[in-house]
Amino acid sequence: MFVLSFTHGCVRYVRNYLVAAVLATAVLAISATAWADPLPSWRDGEVKSRLIAFVEAVSDPTSGRFVAPSERVAVFDNDGTLWAEQPVYFQLFFAADQLKAMAENDPSILTSDALKAAAAGDLKAALAGGEEALLEIVTVSHSNTTVSAFIEAAREWLATARHPETDMAFSDMVYQPMLELLRYLRDEGFDTYIVSGGGVHFMRAFTDKVYGIPPEQVIGSMVETSYGTVDGQPAIVKEPAIAFINDKGGKPVAIDRVIGRRPLLAVGNSDGDFAMLEWTTAGSGPRLAAIVHHTDAEREWAYDRDSHVGRLDRGLSEAGERGWLLIDMANDWLTVYPASAP
Amino acid sequence: MFVLSFTHGCVRYVRNYLVAAVLATAVLAISATAWADPLPSWRDGEVKSRLIAFVEAVSDPTSGRFVAPSERVAVFDNDGTLWAEQPVYFQLFFAADQLKAMAENDPSILTSDALKAAAAGDLKAALAGGEEALLEIVTVSHSNTTVSAFIEAAREWLATARHPETDMAFSDMVYQPMLELLRYLRDEGFDTYIVSGGGVHFMRAFTDKVYGIPPEQVIGSMVETSYGTVDGQPAIVKEPAIAFINDKGGKPVAIDRVIGRRPLLAVGNSDGDFAMLEWTTAGSGPRLAAIVHHTDAEREWAYDRDSHVGRLDRGLSEAGERGWLLIDMANDWLTVYPASAP
Repeated sequence: MFVLSFTHGCVRYVRNYLVAAVLATAVLAISATAWADPLPSWRDGEVKSRLIAFVEAVSDPTSGRFVAPSERVAVFDNDGTLWAEQPVYFQLFFAADQLKAMAENDPSILTSDALKAAAAGDLKAALAGGEEALLEIVTVSHSNTTVSAFIEAAREWLATARHPETDMAFSDMVYQPMLELLRYLRDEGFDTYIVSGGGVHFMRAFTDKVYGIPPEQVIGSMVETSYGTVDGQPAIVKEPAIAFINDKGGKPVAIDRVIGRRPLLAVGNSDGDFAMLEWTTAGSGPRLAAIVHHTDAEREWAYDRDSHVGRLDRGLSEAGERGWLLIDMANDWLTVYPASAP
Repeated sequence: MFVLSFTHGCVRYVRNYLVAAVLATAVLAISATAWADPLPSWRDGEVKSRLIAFVEAVSDPTSGRFVAPSERVAVFDNDGTLWAEQPVYFQLFFAADQLKAMAENDPSILTSDALKAAAAGDLKAALAGGEEALLEIVTVSHSNTTVSAFIEAAREWLATARHPETDMAFSDMVYQPMLELLRYLRDEGFDTYIVSGGGVHFMRAFTDKVYGIPPEQVIGSMVETSYGTVDGQPAIVKEPAIAFINDKGGKPVAIDRVIGRRPLLAVGNSDGDFAMLEWTTAGSGPRLAAIVHHTDAEREWAYDRDSHVGRLDRGLSEAGERGWLLIDMANDWLTVYPASAP
């Protein structure tokens, strides 16, 4: 009888303890979900609300707009969307430094005015020749090397190079609000891909560390590569010819080739992203597109319709009628770079 | 004092109960791990042991050969490795049926003897022209359609078409031992990619359902695609030109482009896979390559050095010295197709 009553008392004691523990855990979990702001660097307003409402709708099984996790694909442009891009795409600073180093060994590689100007560090003159000059600079500076040596060189460069105007490391010029959005999407079951005109191997040098985006989720422009032998070892070698330009209509094409699913969410900043946003939002079911509008001359740069780099004209005109979010950097972002986050 | 001793007694009771419960759970978990055979269709022997030992070593944090989950990439050829490939690659039966249907609408598309023979169902005559004829057949039959319509057509075809010799559905001619290996690898944290000479869109019509391999983990050959408008809607259109042939040295090139990591494990069956296996095993740390050797004329087909389809010559000669596994289908596989699994 004593044993029985002891046991009963103890079972009740255990049960009460367990109930209290489970309740406390549940309350803590609910509090964390309801009260933690997933996007603290975004100012409260329509842009932030619509981003969060979209993510909540597709990830909530009871919402009526639920989408299976395997289909939760978000695509982001890189230059001007995840990090800055002025006065020129950051990769071109690397290309110019590579050309300079290569020309010290062999000046005969500088076969054009564009290459000579780039190796001399005058990118403005080097890019006067437009896209053709840009492709020549990238092709020559990014070839005749193995992929692994190239990525190593890009990592070393990123560790020391500084932006000519801000004197910041380039990988510190990423956007804190976008780091939060990437993490929030992944927390809600999304795969977050980069789909950028930048070079795929250049980006892979830093995207995992800086954005948490692994190499298999980085889609970019490419020079031709070949399989061969270097120093007696099998190697992938970068060749001096363009294989794919991941811009404009090339972006949906590359998304189809590599991912094979239509994204739910696409974020870009220039008319080079227009086709990607159009392709995304033309899908059935819940889809969302957003454009980073560079309106912040104080903390970053202000440019759109007339810019040589990151020109945004058609996207700015049509975003409203298409229901695409226009992210007003000056107004919607409390912080731009992580270093200035509170 | 009573309360204290009550509480002490109860704590001990709870502790003992919890210890017993934890022990029981642990014993059950260990039993399941130790006694469930992850590869029941593989005959016990060196091939099976080495496969399991490799997977256990790279996924066991205490093994000294542990590899982080993000780097656990396995790549598989498809034709002759995951499903059969005789008397010709199965995709060619689809191409021939597509050509026949297309020619009923417009006979003028049959501009060569190879195309005419294929549309007439005589694949032997159609392929007398070798790789050039094969590429022509694929290019013409797989273009001037949207990607989504093409995948839908491939799905409809797979649902009804039958193999001319076995009278089986093509997607029933997958290898049960490979289905088990794919699942085992994924259970141990691997990403399992297909890296095949087959067309990427044709494979995506069935790989998710049949192998559990999602579209973003399917790498194949491709015709050119373009972004345009079809029936007023944005669409990806397949063009009549080859964009990439994912065979031989193209396989490591495509792995680098799409995955950006060197695989830990590569499985193929023909010399078209040699470069992929070589590239994989040339990496540092634990790597493994395996070749399916078609030795089973009774249950499947027996062929190697002299075969037109799936020729295996160099791989057969060098597998031993390179430490690559040779999977002897007749001996190492208890079951070939799922329908005959016990």
